[in-house]
Amino acid sequence: MSNNKSGLLFVLSGPSGAGKGTVMTKLLKTEPLELSISATTRQPRPEDEEGVSYFFKSREEFERMIENNELFEYAMFSGNYYGTPRQYVIDRINAGKDVMLEIEVQGALQVKTSVPEAVLIFLMPKTLKELRARLEGRGTESPEQIEKRLSRAAEEVEYISAYDYIVINDSVEDTVEKLKAIISSEKAKAINNRNIINKFKGEI
Amino acid sequence: MSNNKSGLLFVLSGPSGAGKGTVMTKLLKTEPLELSISATTRQPRPEDEEGVSYFFKSREEFERMIENNELFEYAMFSGNYYGTPRQYVIDRINAGKDVMLEIEVQGALQVKTSVPEAVLIFLMPKTLKELRARLEGRGTESPEQIEKRLSRAAEEVEYISAYDYIVINDSVEDTVEKLKAIISSEKAKAINNRNIINKFKGEI
Repeated sequence: MSNNKSGLLFVLSGPSGAGKGTVMTKLLKTEPLELSISATTRQPRPEDEEGVSYFFKSREEFERMIENNELFEYAMFSGNYYGTPRQYVIDRINAGKDVMLEIEVQGALQVKTSVPEAVLIFLMPKTLKELRARLEGRGTESPEQIEKRLSRAAEEVEYISAYDYIVINDSVEDTVEKLKAIISSEKAKAINNRNIINKFKGEI
Repeated sequence: MSNNKSGLLFVLSGPSGAGKGTVMTKLLKTEPLELSISATTRQPRPEDEEGVSYFFKSREEFERMIENNELFEYAMFSGNYYGTPRQYVIDRINAGKDVMLEIEVQGALQVKTSVPEAVLIFLMPKTLKELRARLEGRGTESPEQIEKRLSRAAEEVEYISAYDYIVINDSVEDTVEKLKAIISSEKAKAINNRNIINKFKGEI
C-alpha cells in the first residue's frame, strides 16, 4: 500500500538449479522491487561494475565489515567472502523501497535473526529428481558437482520450516505470479498498515 | 498448492458500506472458494432457500446449537440470531475446500479464538468520510441509520489489529486482486506446506 513509509525486506533462497535467477529477472521487470547488491572479495571480472553487480572489497575491508557488524549476513564460497551490507539495505528500505536479497539458507537465517520482520521465501523444485534433471539439463556442472549440489539441496531442505513461504517452481510464469502475490499480501498485513489504522482513528 | 489436503479458513469483515458484498461476488466468480452459509432464526423470505441463503432454525434449535458448542460464532441482530455452524465449515475444509466467512468483527474474533490458523481480512474504505459518502450514495438507510453505522465502523476499527490483513477498497478490481493475492500467498505459507517438505525429505 502506498501509505507505507518504509519498504519491506524479502529474502529468496533455494537450491542451485531451482530457477531463482530466471524468476528474479522476470519479477524485477514488473515489480518495483530492488535486488540487493552483495559485497564480495572475489576478483572483479571484465563484465563486473562496482556497485552494480557487487561492491568489491579487499579481504581486509571485508573482515573489518564483519568485525564492525556492517553485514546482515555473510558466507565464504570457494575461498571468497560474500555478504549483504547492512546500511545499504536499511537505506533503501527507509527510502520506501522493497528490497529482495537472493542468498543461501545460512545467510537467510542470519537475516531473520537480525530482522525478524524479513519475509523468507524458499523456491524449490517439486522433487529432488527434478532438480537433478535441471542441473543435468543445463550442462554446466560435472557429475561430481551435481552430486554435491544435490546433497547440499537435501541439507538446505532441513531449514525450510524457518521460512515463511515455500514456492514450488513448476512454471516460471506461475512462480512469478506467486511471488507477486506474496509481495502484495505482505503489504496488506495489518502489522504493515498501522499508519492506516491510526489515520482512520484520527478521523473519529 | 494442490498438495494440500485440507482447505483454509478465511474471514472477511468490514464496516457496512465497505463493499464486502460486491467484492465477494466478483471473487467467487474466479476463485475456487466457498462462502459459508450461516444459520439464523429470522423468518425465511420468498427468495430464500434452505441451505443456500441460510440454514433456517427455530429459536430453540439455535439455542441448543449454542449450548452444544455447534457454532463457531454467533450474534444477535434486530432480535434474530445469526451464526456459523462449526461442523459444516469443518466438513468443507476437510474436503479440501477453502471457505470464506463474511461476518462482523465480534464473530471474527470468536473464530480466531477457536481456529487460530483462520486468516482474518478487514476490508475498509480509505476514510470514514468516504464511508459516509458510500452509505449516503446507496440511499437505502435513513440519516439516523447512517450515523449508527458510522459510529459502529469507528468501534470496529478498534479491533483491526487482531486482523491479519487490511485491504483498502479503493477499486473493486484492485481489491479482488489483493484478496486473490492473500489467498494465493496463504497457500504458499510454509506452515501450510509441511507435506511438501516431508515429501522432499522422503526422497533423500
